[in-house]
Amino acid sequence: MTTTIDYSKADQWIIGEKRFDSRYLGKYESILCLGNGYMCIRSATEETYPGETRNFFVAGTFNKFDEHEVTELPNAPDVTGFQIKLNGEIFSLEKGTVEQYYRQLNLYTGELTRTAEWISPCGERYQMRFQRIVSLKDQHTAAQKITITPIGHDAELFYSTGIDGSVTNSGVQHFSERTKRFYENRYMQMCTVTTESAIEFVTTSVCNSYIDGQPSAAKQRIVMSRRQLACEYALRIPAGGSFVIEKISNVYTSRDRGKEGKDSETLQKIGLEALKCSEAKGYDRLAKESADAWESRVWSKTPVVIRSENPLDQLAVRFAQYHLYVMTPAHDNRMNIGAKGLSGEGYKGHTFWDTDIFALPYFTFTDPAAARSLEEYRYLSLPGARRKARENHYKGAQFPWESAWIDDGEVTPVWGDADIVTGLPTKIWSGFIEQHITADVAYGVWQYYMVTGDQDFMYRYGYEILLDTAVFWSSRLEWSGEDQRYHINDVVGPDEYKEHVNDNAFTNYMAYWNIGIAMEYYERIKEEFPEKFRELNEKLQLEEAYGQWKQRRPRMFLPQPGADLVIPQDASYLTYPVPDLKKYKEAEEVGTLFRDYNLEQVNKLQVSKQADIMALFFLLEDRFLPEVKRANWNYYEPKTLHDSSLSLSTHVILACDMGDRELAYKLFQRAVRIDAGENMKSSDAGIHAASLAGIWQGAVFGFGGVRMLNGALRICPSLPDCWESLSFPITWHGQRMWIGMDHRELTIRNETKTAEVEIEIFGKKYQITDRICVRYDEIDGNCVFVA
Amino acid sequence: MTTTIDYSKADQWIIGEKRFDSRYLGKYESILCLGNGYMCIRSATEETYPGETRNFFVAGTFNKFDEHEVTELPNAPDVTGFQIKLNGEIFSLEKGTVEQYYRQLNLYTGELTRTAEWISPCGERYQMRFQRIVSLKDQHTAAQKITITPIGHDAELFYSTGIDGSVTNSGVQHFSERTKRFYENRYMQMCTVTTESAIEFVTTSVCNSYIDGQPSAAKQRIVMSRRQLACEYALRIPAGGSFVIEKISNVYTSRDRGKEGKDSETLQKIGLEALKCSEAKGYDRLAKESADAWESRVWSKTPVVIRSENPLDQLAVRFAQYHLYVMTPAHDNRMNIGAKGLSGEGYKGHTFWDTDIFALPYFTFTDPAAARSLEEYRYLSLPGARRKARENHYKGAQFPWESAWIDDGEVTPVWGDADIVTGLPTKIWSGFIEQHITADVAYGVWQYYMVTGDQDFMYRYGYEILLDTAVFWSSRLEWSGEDQRYHINDVVGPDEYKEHVNDNAFTNYMAYWNIGIAMEYYERIKEEFPEKFRELNEKLQLEEAYGQWKQRRPRMFLPQPGADLVIPQDASYLTYPVPDLKKYKEAEEVGTLFRDYNLEQVNKLQVSKQADIMALFFLLEDRFLPEVKRANWNYYEPKTLHDSSLSLSTHVILACDMGDRELAYKLFQRAVRIDAGENMKSSDAGIHAASLAGIWQGAVFGFGGVRMLNGALRICPSLPDCWESLSFPITWHGQRMWIGMDHRELTIRNETKTAEVEIEIFGKKYQITDRICVRYDEIDGNCVFVA
Repeated sequence: MTTTIDYSKADQWIIGEKRFDSRYLGKYESILCLGNGYMCIRSATEETYPGETRNFFVAGTFNKFDEHEVTELPNAPDVTGFQIKLNGEIFSLEKGTVEQYYRQLNLYTGELTRTAEWISPCGERYQMRFQRIVSLKDQHTAAQKITITPIGHDAELFYSTGIDGSVTNSGVQHFSERTKRFYENRYMQMCTVTTESAIEFVTTSVCNSYIDGQPSAAKQRIVMSRRQLACEYALRIPAGGSFVIEKISNVYTSRDRGKEGKDSETLQKIGLEALKCSEAKGYDRLAKESADAWESRVWSKTPVVIRSENPLDQLAVRFAQYHLYVMTPAHDNRMNIGAKGLSGEGYKGHTFWDTDIFALPYFTFTDPAAARSLEEYRYLSLPGARRKARENHYKGAQFPWESAWIDDGEVTPVWGDADIVTGLPTKIWSGFIEQHITADVAYGVWQYYMVTGDQDFMYRYGYEILLDTAVFWSSRLEWSGEDQRYHINDVVGPDEYKEHVNDNAFTNYMAYWNIGIAMEYYERIKEEFPEKFRELNEKLQLEEAYGQWKQRRPRMFLPQPGADLVIPQDASYLTYPVPDLKKYKEAEEVGTLFRDYNLEQVNKLQVSKQADIMALFFLLEDRFLPEVKRANWNYYEPKTLHDSSLSLSTHVILACDMGDRELAYKLFQRAVRIDAGENMKSSDAGIHAASLAGIWQGAVFGFGGVRMLNGALRICPSLPDCWESLSFPITWHGQRMWIGMDHRELTIRNETKTAEVEIEIFGKKYQITDRICVRYDEIDGNCVFVA
Repeated sequence: MTTTIDYSKADQWIIGEKRFDSRYLGKYESILCLGNGYMCIRSATEETYPGETRNFFVAGTFNKFDEHEVTELPNAPDVTGFQIKLNGEIFSLEKGTVEQYYRQLNLYTGELTRTAEWISPCGERYQMRFQRIVSLKDQHTAAQKITITPIGHDAELFYSTGIDGSVTNSGVQHFSERTKRFYENRYMQMCTVTTESAIEFVTTSVCNSYIDGQPSAAKQRIVMSRRQLACEYALRIPAGGSFVIEKISNVYTSRDRGKEGKDSETLQKIGLEALKCSEAKGYDRLAKESADAWESRVWSKTPVVIRSENPLDQLAVRFAQYHLYVMTPAHDNRMNIGAKGLSGEGYKGHTFWDTDIFALPYFTFTDPAAARSLEEYRYLSLPGARRKARENHYKGAQFPWESAWIDDGEVTPVWGDADIVTGLPTKIWSGFIEQHITADVAYGVWQYYMVTGDQDFMYRYGYEILLDTAVFWSSRLEWSGEDQRYHINDVVGPDEYKEHVNDNAFTNYMAYWNIGIAMEYYERIKEEFPEKFRELNEKLQLEEAYGQWKQRRPRMFLPQPGADLVIPQDASYLTYPVPDLKKYKEAEEVGTLFRDYNLEQVNKLQVSKQADIMALFFLLEDRFLPEVKRANWNYYEPKTLHDSSLSLSTHVILACDMGDRELAYKLFQRAVRIDAGENMKSSDAGIHAASLAGIWQGAVFGFGGVRMLNGALRICPSLPDCWESLSFPITWHGQRMWIGMDHRELTIRNETKTAEVEIEIFGKKYQITDRICVRYDEIDGNCVFVA
C-alpha cells in the first residue's frame, strides 16, 4: 500500500492528501471529516466515485430499520454532491490528467480545501478549488464553495446539485420521504422522518454563483424526483474567468434540544429562515465565523504544544483534539460519543466503554462541562441499564455494552463476520457478557468527580450511578463452595478474543473496586446528605445492599500473580497453547488471525486482541507492584495483536509508568498512526474515537505523567528523547493549570488562581496558587520554587 | 449528444455499443438487459461507475416501503458486480486507455458480450472479455464468464465478487436481511425477505476459475459484512495466460409458483442444489441451453422478417420481440407486464393499459398462451377493481390505472415532479380519474377472444370481465337534464396533459363500446350458457344491469365531428389557445414543456402529450370515416408532442390506414428509436414496453395491414417503399398462418391446416386452409390462387 497522506504543510496544523487515489476514498472521508458535535459530514468529494461512502450524521438521531437489526445513526440526506460538466465532460479526477493536486484539512480553521488543475480528456485545462466547512459557530449549518477557472479557453459549464435523500446506511434506508419543495425556485427543502423513531429531519439548501465576483446569470432548472431535489445550471465561463459556486445548507430535527415534538412545518420555517441568514453572510464569512469558534473554543483554550524532532507528534495530538470536538455532542446530555465518532457507519454510532475510559478523561481534564454532559448521559441511561440487569436476573444497573438513545438499553448487534469454519455469521457475545462496562462507567464518574470536584453532579447523578452499579456487581457474584469465594464466571473481558471466561482479572478487580467506592460513598452520603440518602435508599434499597457488599466484597476472588508474577488474565488463559503470532503481528491490517482460525479456535489460544491486564494496571495503578507490571508486560504484550485500536495508547502509558520511554515513544508512534498514519484502509468505517483520545492520553498521561491517583493530582513527566518540550492545560477542581515541561524542569501555572491546588511531583507534594517550576535534578532535595 | 450505439454488426441480430461513455450507462443497462420473464438483470457492468443503476428484478415480488409509498418491484440482491485489480490497479474503463471496445447483445442467443483491450494507467495491456446470460431455459439461473489475458507481462490479479444485498430502489430498501452463509467455503447464499409483503428471497452464487483451461489455484478468502457476502481471490497470471472466471447464480422466492409459503430453509436447499447442477454444466453449456431456448421458443416460432434498405428496421422488430419475452411473466397468471418491463425502476413495475392495448396484441396474435396468462391476471385482479369502484361509489369493476400484485388494487402514486410555479410536487390524477383503462381491459379481452376463439377463457374469465366493466361504466354515467344525455365528466383521457376534462372522446366512445359488447354477450350467454348466466347474474345482478344498459347506452353523449370534421378531444380542448410548440416538438428530450409551464397551465393550452382521438380511431376504426380521420390527424398531430412513448406507434398505424406510407415510415423510424435509437438518455429508467410492442404493431398492424375487425381477420398490406418484403406468422383461432408480402403480392400459408380461416384482403374475403397468393394488381378482379 503506497500512502498518499501528507504532513509536510504549514506548521503542524495541516493534514493533507498529496495525490488522489480512488482506492483510498474511505481514509480521507473519515480522517478529514467535518463536524461540530451536533452533526458531521464525511468528506466524500463533491463528484462521486465508486466505493465512496457519503455520510451525513446528526448526533443522537438513532433509528432501527427492523426488529432484527439494532438501532443506529441514520445517514441523513446529502447536500455535498455536485455533478459538474465542463464542455460536456463529466469532471472526475479519474479522467484526463490531474496536476497540482492537494487536499487538506486545516485543523486550526476546520476548513477542508481541495485544489487541482484538471486537464480534461480532450486536453482542456481548468483550475478547480473546493472549500467546505461545517460551522462550529452555528451547529446546523454547512457551507461549500467551488471555484472554477478555465485556462486558455472558454468553457460551457453545467452543474447540478441539490439534496439527495437516497443515501442509506450500507443499503439500509432509515427515512420515510415527506414533503419536498422549492421556495422562490431556488431554496430546496426536503423533509424526511426516521421510520421507527419518528424523528423529523428538515434539510434546506441554496446555491448561488458568481462570475469574477458578480452574481452570475446561469440558466437554472429545478428538478424533483424520488428522494431527490436539485437545481441544474448552465452557463459559459470565458477563458480565465473565475466562476464561484456557493452552496449553503442546514439541517434541523425534531430531536434537537428545544425542538422536541416540533412538527415538520415549524422546522421547515426555522430551516428556511436560518438559511436565508446564512446565505446573506456568504461562504467566506461563515467560514471565518467557524474558524473563530475553533480558535476561541478549542485552540486557545486547550493548546497542547509538543516540540518534537518528529512533527507528526504535534500534528497527531491536534488531529486528535480536532476529532474529539467534531465527534462529541456536548450540547445535549441525551447523547454520547460513538466508537467511530460521527465519521462513519462503523459501530452504528453506538457508545462503548471507549467513552468512559478513553474519551471522557480528555474532557474531564480539559472541558469539564462537556465531560459532565457525557456523564449525565450515563445517568439518563440508567433506566435501560436497570432493565438490562432485570432481564438478566440481576439487580441494580447493568450498563449496556453498546448504547444509543438513552431509552434504548442494550443495542449490541448479535451477529458479525463470517466464521471461516462454519460459513455462518459469528455470534457477538459482548452484548450478553462483556460486563466490565458497568465498572468502567462507574470509574468514569469517579474520575470526573475527583478531577473536577463537581459535587452538584455527584449529588444529582453521580452517587446514584456509583451505588447502583455496585448493586449490580454484588448481585452478579457467584459463590463457590469449593474455594469459599465469590467469582464472576462466563464473561468477556476487554480482550474480546477470549469469550465465556471465568474470573477475568480486569472484570473482577474493577467490580471489586466498584463495590468499594460505593461503600465509601454510602457512608459519606448517609452522613453528609441524609436527605439524599433517604431518597437513594428508598430507590435502591441501599441498606440491604450495603450489608451484602460488606459480606461479599472481602470474599471476592481476585486473581493473584503466580510465582513468575504473571496474573492469569482469566481462569483458563495460561492453560492454552501459545501460537506463532509473527505473521499477524506484522500484518498491515487488523484481524488477519481470522483468515486462519475461527473465534472458537482463537478462544483456546494464548492470543489477545488488546490490553486486558494492562488496562487494569492503568486504571488501578497503585494496586500492583512495578515488578508485577513488568512481568505481565513481558508475558502478555508478545501475545497481544493490538487488533483493537484501544490497545496501543494504554501500552504507551504503561511503558511510561515502567520508565521505558523509548518503548513508550515507539508505541506512541504506532498509536498516532491508527488514523493519521500511512495505512490507507484502517479508517474506512470511521475514525477510532478511543484511539484518538488515547493519543492525548499518551501525551498527557503518558509522557506528561499526569494522573489522578486516589483523588490526588500527580505529575511525573517522562518525555521521550526526541521531544524537546511539552505543554498543555488541564483543569483541576475549577483551576485551570498550565503545565509545561522539558528534560530539565517542570513548570506549572495556576491560571485561575482562585484556589490552591495540591500536586504530587515525583513523590513530593506542592501547593500551587500561582506558579512553580521544579528542576528534575533537584527533585530529591530542594526544588526551585519560582513565585 | 453524440451516440455510441451501433447496429453495424452481424446481420441484424446484434445491437451494440461501439465506445464506452459513462454518461450513457443507463441507456445500455436498459436496452441490453437480460431476462426471461421470471427475472431480469439490468446490464450494469461488472465493475461499478458513478451513476449506474444496478437492478435485479423478480417479476411479481412487489413490496411497499411505507404507508406513504406505493408498492413496487424491489431491487433484489445483486450478483453481477466484480471488483478486479490488475497489478494493483482497479479495472475501470475510465482509467488508462481502452482499445477495441465493443459491447453487444446478441438477440438471437440472448448473450451479452463485452470485449476490450485495456491499457492500465501504468501502461500494461490486458485483453478483457465479459459474457453474461440470464437463462431462458432455467428461469432462476444467471451466469457470467470473464476472460482476462495479460499481454506481454505477468499480472497479479485480485478479484472480489459475491452477493450484494445493499442495493435499493433509488434509496428505498425493500428487504430485511436474514440468514447469510457460505457452504464449503465457496457457495454463497443470502436470504432476504421483503419488508411488507414478506416474500422470502434466496440468492445463491458460486465462482470458479480456470487458467488456460485448468482449474486455477487462486488464494481465496470469504468475506461477510452487512448485506454483503463475497469471495476474494488473488493469483498471478503469466504473460499471455488466459484466466477465466465463471460465476453462476440463482434466485428462488416464496412467491414462485408452487413455492408459495415455502419457508426459507426449503428454498435454501433448492437453491444450493440447483446451483450445484448449474455449476456442473458450466457457463458455456448454460449459455448454449439458453440460446437453444431462444431459438426454439421465440425465433423459430415467431420470426418477423423485413427486407429493408434500412437494416435498423429488421433489428428494431427483433429487439422489440426480444424485450417482449424478457419482460413478460407468462409463466404466472398472477403477474403482468410492467410499463418498463423488468428493465428499470421506472413506473415501479406497475401494469398500465400498455398491456391491454399495446403489448397484449403481440401475444394474442403470436403466442395465445402467454396472452391468456396476461388476461387471467386481469380476471384475478377483479376483486381490486371492484374495491376501487366501491370506494369511488360506483358499481362493477373499475380497473386500477396502475396495478401490481393481484390483490393490491389501485397503486398509482399520488405525487410527481416539481411544479415550477409552486415549487411543490405535482399531483398525479391518473389513479383517481384516468378511467379509460377499464374499457381498455375489456377491449383486450374481446380482442383476445376474437383472435383466438378461446371459448374456455371466455366462459371462465372473459365474460365476467366484459360484463362487470360495463356495470362500472353504466354506474359511472352522469345524466344532464340540459341536453338529456349521459356524460362522463372529470376524467383524464389518454392525453394526460388534459386533466379534469368532461366528455373525453376516447373515454366516452370506449365506454359506449364496452357497454355494447356486454349487451351482446349478455344475450349470448343467457341463450347459450344458461348455467353461467345464472352464476353471473347472481354475482353481478346482470338483469338489472342490462335494463340500465338498454336505457342509458343510447342516451350517452358521444362527441361528434364539427363542420371542419374535427372531433373535440374533450368538452374544452378546442376553446384553449394554441401555443407555439416548435421548441418542444424539436427537443431531444420529452417533457421539456414543463420547464416553462406547470401542469395547471398546460391543462389550458391546445397541446397533447400523445395520441388520444388517434388511439380511438385505431381501436374503433370502422366507426369513423376516412375524411374525419384525416381532418383530425391534421388538427391534432401538430399539437401532439409525443411525450408518451405510446404515441408514435399509434400514429404509424393510422398513417398506414390513411394510405400515407411515407409519413407512416417516417413515424415508424422515430418510434423504433425510442429505445433502440441514438438518444442516449431516453431509456435510463427502463425500456418502454408499450413502445416496443408498438414497433411490432407498426410493422404487422401498420405496414402489414393485419387487423381484427369485428371479429374478422383483415389484411391490407401497405409496405413502405424502402421495404422489399415483410413476413411474419400470426395465429388465428388456433391456426398458425405464415404471412409474406412484397410490393407485388401477398402470400398466406395456413401452416396448421386443421381449419379454414377467412381473411378479408382489400375488401374481398378468402377462405384459407392451405396457401394463397394474392397479386395486388388483380385485387379488384380475379385473384391468383395458388393451391
